[in-house]
This record gives sequence, C-alpha cells and structure tokens, in this order.
Amino acid sequence: MGFKVTFAPDNLTVTVSRGTTLRRAAAMAGIDLKSTCGGEGTCGLCLVRVLDGDGARFLGGNIPPKRRREGYLPACRTVVESDLTVEVPDFARLVRHRVLVEKIQAGEVLAEEEVDAAARYGLDPLLSRLALALDPPNLTENASDWTRLTAALRRAAGDPDLTFGCDLTLLRRLPRVLRDGGWEVTVWLRGWADAPAAPAGRENGPTSGGSLDAPPRVLVTDIAPGRVERPTLGLAVDIGTTSVVAHLVDLDRGTTLGARGTYNHQARYGDDVITRMIHATEEARGLDQLNEAVLESLNELVDGLCLAAGVEPADIRSVVAAGNTTMEHLFLKVPPDWIRLEPYIPAAVDFPVVRAGELGLRVNPAAPVRCVPSVASYVGGDIVAGVLATGLAERDEITLFIDIGTNGEMVLGNREWMVACACSAGPCFEGGGIAHGMRAVPGAIERLEIGPDYEVRIETVGGAGPRGICGSGLVDALAKLKEAGIIDRAGRFQEVPSSRLRTGPDGPEFVLVWGPDGGGAGSGGASTSEVVITEADVKNLIRAKGAVYAGIRSLLAAVDLTLADIDRIYVAGGFGNYLNIRDAVRIGMLPDVDPVRYRFAGNTSVKGAKAALLSRRAFEAAREIAGRMTYLELSAGSGFMEEFVSSLFLPHTDLGQFPSVDS
Amino acid sequence: MGFKVTFAPDNLTVTVSRGTTLRRAAAMAGIDLKSTCGGEGTCGLCLVRVLDGDGARFLGGNIPPKRRREGYLPACRTVVESDLTVEVPDFARLVRHRVLVEKIQAGEVLAEEEVDAAARYGLDPLLSRLALALDPPNLTENASDWTRLTAALRRAAGDPDLTFGCDLTLLRRLPRVLRDGGWEVTVWLRGWADAPAAPAGRENGPTSGGSLDAPPRVLVTDIAPGRVERPTLGLAVDIGTTSVVAHLVDLDRGTTLGARGTYNHQARYGDDVITRMIHATEEARGLDQLNEAVLESLNELVDGLCLAAGVEPADIRSVVAAGNTTMEHLFLKVPPDWIRLEPYIPAAVDFPVVRAGELGLRVNPAAPVRCVPSVASYVGGDIVAGVLATGLAERDEITLFIDIGTNGEMVLGNREWMVACACSAGPCFEGGGIAHGMRAVPGAIERLEIGPDYEVRIETVGGAGPRGICGSGLVDALAKLKEAGIIDRAGRFQEVPSSRLRTGPDGPEFVLVWGPDGGGAGSGGASTSEVVITEADVKNLIRAKGAVYAGIRSLLAAVDLTLADIDRIYVAGGFGNYLNIRDAVRIGMLPDVDPVRYRFAGNTSVKGAKAALLSRRAFEAAREIAGRMTYLELSAGSGFMEEFVSSLFLPHTDLGQFPSVDS
Repeated sequence: MGFKVTFAPDNLTVTVSRGTTLRRAAAMAGIDLKSTCGGEGTCGLCLVRVLDGDGARFLGGNIPPKRRREGYLPACRTVVESDLTVEVPDFARLVRHRVLVEKIQAGEVLAEEEVDAAARYGLDPLLSRLALALDPPNLTENASDWTRLTAALRRAAGDPDLTFGCDLTLLRRLPRVLRDGGWEVTVWLRGWADAPAAPAGRENGPTSGGSLDAPPRVLVTDIAPGRVERPTLGLAVDIGTTSVVAHLVDLDRGTTLGARGTYNHQARYGDDVITRMIHATEEARGLDQLNEAVLESLNELVDGLCLAAGVEPADIRSVVAAGNTTMEHLFLKVPPDWIRLEPYIPAAVDFPVVRAGELGLRVNPAAPVRCVPSVASYVGGDIVAGVLATGLAERDEITLFIDIGTNGEMVLGNREWMVACACSAGPCFEGGGIAHGMRAVPGAIERLEIGPDYEVRIETVGGAGPRGICGSGLVDALAKLKEAGIIDRAGRFQEVPSSRLRTGPDGPEFVLVWGPDGGGAGSGGASTSEVVITEADVKNLIRAKGAVYAGIRSLLAAVDLTLADIDRIYVAGGFGNYLNIRDAVRIGMLPDVDPVRYRFAGNTSVKGAKAALLSRRAFEAAREIAGRMTYLELSAGSGFMEEFVSSLFLPHTDLGQFPSVDS
Repeated sequence: MGFKVTFAPDNLTVTVSRGTTLRRAAAMAGIDLKSTCGGEGTCGLCLVRVLDGDGARFLGGNIPPKRRREGYLPACRTVVESDLTVEVPDFARLVRHRVLVEKIQAGEVLAEEEVDAAARYGLDPLLSRLALALDPPNLTENASDWTRLTAALRRAAGDPDLTFGCDLTLLRRLPRVLRDGGWEVTVWLRGWADAPAAPAGRENGPTSGGSLDAPPRVLVTDIAPGRVERPTLGLAVDIGTTSVVAHLVDLDRGTTLGARGTYNHQARYGDDVITRMIHATEEARGLDQLNEAVLESLNELVDGLCLAAGVEPADIRSVVAAGNTTMEHLFLKVPPDWIRLEPYIPAAVDFPVVRAGELGLRVNPAAPVRCVPSVASYVGGDIVAGVLATGLAERDEITLFIDIGTNGEMVLGNREWMVACACSAGPCFEGGGIAHGMRAVPGAIERLEIGPDYEVRIETVGGAGPRGICGSGLVDALAKLKEAGIIDRAGRFQEVPSSRLRTGPDGPEFVLVWGPDGGGAGSGGASTSEVVITEADVKNLIRAKGAVYAGIRSLLAAVDLTLADIDRIYVAGGFGNYLNIRDAVRIGMLPDVDPVRYRFAGNTSVKGAKAALLSRRAFEAAREIAGRMTYLELSAGSGFMEEFVSSLFLPHTDLGQFPSVDS
C-alpha cells in the first residue's frame, strides 16, 4: 500500500511507500530538484511546499528563514505519511541550461587547440574498416565461416600467422551476415593497423588458424553484409557532473559532424559528486539509477546528433568518454563507494574496453567504449583529456592547467614531469550556498560593474531578466565590491553611502538588483527577482577562491617553483570560458602574472576524448599522461592549509604575490 | 485465443494456438517423444491417439499399418484445431536411459587410456590460483584498487612490465572483495603460468601499470576475499546428442571427484542432430530452446556432482566441453543452420572462450568455458577429444579411431597425418527405423544367440523383461541370423523349419521373443513385449553397417593404404562399449583384422575434454589436432558410393576382405 503524492503545478502523481522523502518522490515523477548537500538537509535548496494533506513529516534540517516563513520545507528531509499535494517552486527546480551548452559548443568548434590536437596526433582511429569478397564455400572448400573470414583477412594482411578473435555475439551473427551479403562483407577490426607490419611467427601462439583462446592480435569487432560505404562514425563524450557533451565524428575523414550537450540526468539524485556517491552507496538501487540516468543523457545526445546529421546510431562504432573519476565509475556502473572516504580510493583509474551493448549505450552494440584513464579519485579522465588536448605534456615550457567547478582541479608540468591536485572549492562557483546563487542559465548575472555612485550595471546569460547570479558573476561581484570599497580585504561590509547596502535577515547585504517593488529606496520586499549578495556569500566566495589559489601554490611548492616559472595558464571548463580573468586575479583566485600567459581552453575534456577517438596514439598518450602524473593529496600535510589560511584575504595576506592589484 | 490440449495418462494440460502440432504441444507439456525424421512425418515414432475432441487434423505422413489400425497418428503431423485429450503411449515416449549412462561411468573411471592421457600431459591447468596480502591504502599510498592488485601481482611475478586485464564484472566486485578480505585476497589468473618466464619489456605495450586496452598477458578471471583454501575445481563435459556426461575434477591435484551422466534434454525437440537443427532453424525460439535444454542437462549434472562431492558449484572455475559440431553450436547458442545444408558449413570450428555466467551454466559465473575445437560440420570436438585421449596423433603407428552413433565418425592417422570422415549410418544402431528397435535402456536386447534348432537366447540391458532390441543386439542378430542360415548374404529371409519365421504385416519376419500369448505357435497377436526382426530391418541394418565399412575403406583409399597397415583400432562411444567385435566383423561392419588390434576406448570425448581441462598443453594439442586433420567429404566423389554398394552384402561383395568369415 502506498500514498499518492501529486506535484503542482506539473500535476504529476506518483505512488510511494510510507517514509519516502519528497525529494525521492519528486525524482520518481521526473522532477529534478537542486541540491548541494547530498540530501543531508543542510543546503536549503530543494524546497517544496505542502498544499494539501497532513502527513508530511519534517525530520529537521536547514531552511532559509525567509523560506521558512513562506512555509517551505526541504524535500530531502520531509517524508510522506499520507496522500499529499506538493508545490515545487521554480527556484528549487534544476534548470536545464541548454544555452550554456550551446555556447560551449560554439566556442569549441572554433578553438585553436582542437585543431592543434588533431594535427599533433593525426588520424589513426582504433577501428579499421575493410570490405572483403570471400570465395563461397563448396564441398571441397568447406571451411567454417569464421575460418573462411580469417583466412581472407590473413591474405589481405599478407601475414599467414596473424591471429584473430571475436566475441560470441559476433559469431552468432556471422553465418547470416555472410550469406545476406552474398559472401561480400565489411568488417571492423581492432589491432589491424599494426597487423601487417608485425613480425610473422609467434613463440607461444596458437598454430591453428581460427584460434580464439590465446590473446589474438586482431579483434573483429563488427561485421555487416555487403560493401558498407557509409562512414564509420565515432562519439567523443565529456561526462560532466552537471552537463554531458558529445561530439559526433567521422572516423574516415576526421571531421566533426555535430556537437551537442545536455544536462546530466543524474542531477535528480543530487547536484554534486559527493551527493551522488552517497546515493550510489546508500540506496538499494542507487548505483543502477545513477548509471541509467547518465546513459539516458547520452542516449538523448546520440539521438539528437544522429537526427541532425542524418546518420544512424548504428553507424557509431567507437566511443571514447572522459569524465571525473566518479563519473567514469558511474558510467560503467562500477561502485564509487570508497572514492569519498579517506584515503579516497577508486576501484580503478583505467577501465577495460566495454561493448556499447553491454552498457546500454544506444549506438552500435558492438562499438568498443573506452574511458580516458584517470589519475586518482579527484583527478579524473576529464583532466587527463584536458592535458592531452592542451599539449601540456608535450612542451618543454611549464604550463598550469586549471579546471574550476565544484572541485578546482589543476595540473602543473611539462614534457618531463606533471603534478596534479584537486581542491574542494565548494559549490559556490556553481551557485550553491549563495543566497541568490544559480547556475549559468538564462537570467543569471554573469558580468557586473559598480559605478562610482554605487550604481550596478549587469549582464545576464541570454540577456534575460535577472533571476540570480552565477559563478563568473560572483567573481566579478567580489572584485567590484572590493574595488568600490564596499567590502574590505577580509570581506567585511563597510559603511558606504548607498541604500543598496542594508541589513537583511541574515546580516549585511548589498542589493545588486532591486525587486519590482524595490526601486531606488531600500525596501526589503519579498520580490523573487531581487538579487542581493550577503556578507555570508562573500565569506563563502573568499574560501572558494582561497582554495583554488592555495592549490596552485601547493603544486608550485611541491616542485619547488615560483609563479614566475609558469609560461602558460590554461583555464578550462564551462565556468572558465566566461571568467573575467582580470577580476579573478584581483580577488586572488588566479595568479597575478602577465595576462598574455592566460588562455581559455573551453571544454578540454571532450576535446581530449575526441583526439583519443581519432587516434590510437593519442589514447596511448592519455594513458601515459595518467601514468606519469603525480597526484598530490592536499589533505596529507602538503602545506595546503597554511596556503589556504593566507589566501583568505582579498587578494591575499602576502600582497607581494599580487603586485598588479591595488590593495 | 488458444485450445487446451490434455495429455493422458499424465493429465498435463497446455494451451496452444490453432495449427500447433501435437508434438510441439507435448514438448510444451514436458513430454518428450521419439523421433528420427526431424518432424517430417516419415519415421512413424512419435505416435499419439486422440481420446476426446474432433479438431485433430492429420496432415499426412507415415504410420506403421498396425498402429494405424489402432488409431495412432504421428504427433509431428497432426495439428490442433479444437480442445483435445490425447494419449501418449509408452512406446512413443523418449525413455531416460539412466542405466546406460551409469554403465559408461563405471567403465570410464577404470579405463587405461585416461591414466595415459593424464600422464602424457601432466597437470598444467588453464587457471592459476594465488593468494595475496596487499598493503592497505593510505593518503600517500592511494593507488586505485586495480592498480594495487596488479602491482602486487607484478611483484609476485618478478616482472615489472607484466600486463593484466579483467572484465567489467570483476572490476565491479573488486572494491568490496578487497575490503571484505581485509586486503587479503585470492585471485584466479589465466596466462600466469607463462608470465614469470616471459621476457620483460614489450615493444608496443602500454606503459601504465593498470592498462586494459592492449591485449594483456594475464587475465584476472576471478577474485575472492581472504585466503581461499578450497580446491579449484573444473568440469569436463561430453555433450552427446543423446546423453550428456560430466566429470568433476580437482584442478589442484588432478583427481576426479565424480562422474555423472544424464540424457540430453534437447531430445524433446527431436532425437537426432538433423531434427534439432531443423528445430533451431525453423522455430521462432528454436535455437534458444535447444540451448536452454542442454544447459538444463548440464546444470542438473553440476548440481548432482557437487551435492555428491560436498562442494559448491561456485568452486567450479574452469569448464571444457566436447561435443559434435552441432552440439557445440547449440551449447553456445550459435546458429547451426548451414551445417545440414550442402556444402555443410559450420559457423566456426573453434569458439571464443566464454564466461559461464554469460552462458547460463550454473558454476562460478566467471569460469572460462572452452569447447574442444571441431574439424568440420560432421567431425566435431568430440572426435578431436577422442583423438587426444587415445594418443592417436602422438604415435608413429597408424591408428583407426571409430565412434559409431547415428553418424559413424572415424579418423585414420598417426603423428604425421590424419584423415577423418563421417558417414551417415542412419538411426538404426540407436533403435530408429527398426520395427522393435530401441535405445540401450532396461529391457533392450543387447546380446543374442540362435541355437541349432533356431531357439533364441537373449540378454537384456539391466536383465529386465525384453521390450525391444538395441544397437549391439541388432549387430548380434544380423550375425546370428546369417550364421543360422535364416538370411542370405543379401539379407533375404530363407525357408527354415521354424515357426519363428513367419509373414508379418510388412513381409517376412523372425520372432526373437514371443509375446505372452504367443508361445511356440505362430500367433501374430498384438502383445507389446513380442520382439521381431523384419526383412526391412535387415535391409536397414545392412545399409548402416555398409556405410561404416565404406567410410573406413574410403579413408584408407584416400591415403593409399590397406587394412593391413592399421596397427590399432579404437572403438569409442557408448554403443562401442557393448559391441560384440567378432559379430561386427562377421557382418562386415568392422575390418577383418587380428582381434588383438581392437580395443574399446569408452567415452573418449569426456576423457579428452578432461585432459584439456587439466592441461593447457593438452588443449593446445587438441587445437593442433583439429587444425591438421584432413576432412574427407564423402559426398564429393571420394569413391564412397562404390565402396558402399560393395558393402551391401554380408559380410561384403569382396569376400577376400573378410578371410576369417565363413560366407
């Protein structure tokens, strides 16, 4: 027996058992709520309001005072004990930030680095395609289908000792395919590119032609009747915690047929990796759900890309995915349980090649799916792909690579050495834990200026009416508040002659955007489109920027270098693309070096994945990068804490590190 | 909407759609009917009688006249068009011949060849077991679980370049297993035995430790927490068309813990391979059903063997199966469709290694399952296993290996060359197409003598009351009828002064056993336990024995040798074990050579499979045997037809070939 929970205004009803949280019920109804605390009831984001029914039991948790007065409860800490009707307000809903993704795409296709990566490694994909005309069998030439196929392949390679393998799935299809094609057949092969050049004869190899037991040199991964003229396609994927981006690639020509992004459907189980890991560990079907959710996102992208390009998903025959270590675990349904617990151990950093069909990825079921190898629990395949894409590991010059999201991940190094770390910046650059924080979706303030009379000029994502402030806007805000003297070096609000500075329910706050009933005067009304920044927000932001800068300092210290030794700084990731570098330096988040050393690299995760998809050498290079990157665990007495404490000022305790910034 | 069909006396009811055959309905009810014609309505074995209902439509087909008068219809050619009640008589039911299987087992364990095979190849199983104590991770030693495991394995091997692989299933279990075992763990490895001896350094190998993309040298196939002291077990299987036999083996010690057989549950879809291939091809779920049926037999054996030995099925970690080519296809669910159609092409003769879990074989799901390679459509892995077991391919002397069932398969050769063929002996040695033919189940006449006064002395399987006559009894009967002058060299009945010789409904016949109402006088009553042999039976038998002998002659002709060149003749298979060699020579089925050259080899298929299970070298030897055996297709102008026609006499047209036989 269960209770009916109806969500408004969607008018969606689900039946749940007693004790189910409203958050879970909403997820069942397909309504994804914000969250950054992992359902612990502390972030105060997944707020809902009970309209009807008396069996909503609140188990305790944090609710922003204003929302509490309005009757909201955190869905993650409210359980169902009767039939209910529940309102889900817009501000608690996870918004699908399509625009951001489209902007990323547009940038990527033109990015210079991508061209570089393709040029550096060239076109040498994992799969080779070969059309063969076999001699039909007769009573005296009656070898088995597999023997016939491999004999023809050996002749084509000019190597009578070449060994071949396939899986049972292919063998089950083989007889029908050969006959459907009238003994003309197209095969896709792994290891074929190296095969003809390989020395003949093997010491311990099988002597029979069709041998499948000893590891074969060449794998037949797929087969189709006749001479297939359609191009062999590949999919490069960046599996981000927030969004998933895929590029559809023609593996014959090396061209990109389309790029597309969507949000990671896992968000319905929590906004950040920690929340998702907790879900995977503690819910009975948690890991399955997270795995299914990300596949849902990917399959959506595949369908959209194929439709737009006028191709069939079955023509996608090779997939390379890059994601942070947790995302790669969840993508392959490998338990990530110990990643979040000290000493933070992933199951693997390099995963076996898997058939797409085995995973439930709706491309050609025989397509080999590979993940770009990770380094450690908090330096994943996305960072390795980024290093690959930017060419950091191939240059003599020292490069710093930074990817800022919930975690700030960074790599310092050159062709001889690399050191990497991850520092928890907290969720505020993604809008979490900030009074009016939000993701970079339409209506988010992404740029702002404060005039001499404390007037505020804003720019929003998509030019929409302002609804909140996103990461790049927050960096701007911090710099501009400091510059205008509204906050001091420690982030404390100062007395300034402006009605925008006022005392809100949680202490001092500065009004960036007046609500509709606000105007110039300081009326603390309840308008939902008013945007303020509070002293608590400022403190959170200072901690976040401090963590990033302390991470950079720790890396430098670990290799006994200084800022002056860094030749180039790549800022990667969706956030990085919109960051005002000057402001990021001004607040002491990024090092105060010559601005020409900075460059935006865009989504380097998907770029690196694409290079690895197009070239086996690039994939091997990624593996080599992962293998030789030294991971610096910041919690293990690395001096990080001292650096962090020194960074909790604007720009820093040691002003000598920021010569270009007025203090 | 469907019709209800109730089977009597079982009182089992199934619901089927209009047009379903009664044979199929019976199979759905779990009632297995005899058949040798593949459901073509020609063998007249799957007879049933409609007791109630008027919608049983007979589509035409062969019915023995006596049965037709009694109201029987062939179930394969009668379709359902209303609710029906149908009687299935005992004589049409497939009998589970448990006794035969038990007799085979008893013989096998003592057979000398088995000891030889084990001694020849020694103990060198596919899987190595290794217990490891890993250092627990900490913040500075925080490699991934897989990296930690493989690093320990590399240390154990003393080879820092050794590469390891595993599948996703293992990786998904790895973190939990390592922690459950407190970082002590037992692993099972493939390729480990060769690993330490291998040269360090690889030209194109991955440089990172945990690499899984390039073919690894060692596969981690399974893992368990702690130090596992239980023995690693293996299963050797012979998948016969009629029966399935399995041996449970301790791979640590090389000892056999148990042997067990059961009938192949596929029999419910037809008695012989041809019928089953038709079922696989023409029924929508035919291949699935046949695959499930043989797995049902195997899982039954696994359960029984483990229960008797007091071990767990999960401890069975390696499986080697041998069967004829069709049986191996069906076991792996690979379509056998083109095996039965000229030019008789199997999908493969050497199959990939498959995980038991993928197949549905209920041993350890990670256990690698291998099939002994076949040679061609009608010379299968069972014959290759037989050659391996008997050591034919290792001796200088020329050996003839014969396995007689529905097909007579034979191999001639020595360490330098081997030639093999298969001749269709028809179903009569298995009791098919013979008036009172039956399989070697209790009550079957397996030996007989005819005295000077035409009195008949019989011996039955299990000493039970006679119900029919099986293969070895039929060979005896043919020899004794000829010796007593009851039939002539061409198989025609002669006038003899005995009431046993009479004219039955289908022409002349000889009464071997009188029915209860018979006694000395010739009353042609309808008793079911009367056993006769008809002139038509004799003609069938002569064709069958002629095919076997012509096959042997064709092999000799192909390599330009004579009977005198054969040093040893192995007679294998369940039938062979009970064959009276002297009588087989007398009727011209087996060559007339010195009887000391003959020896019974028992179930060489399971023996060969066991040798391959115990020793990788033996498995490689089997592969080599399959690779170098020349298959002679008898239908391709090999002179077989001439030999066959000459063999249609008792013993032969050319009496010079049977000097020891009185003509």
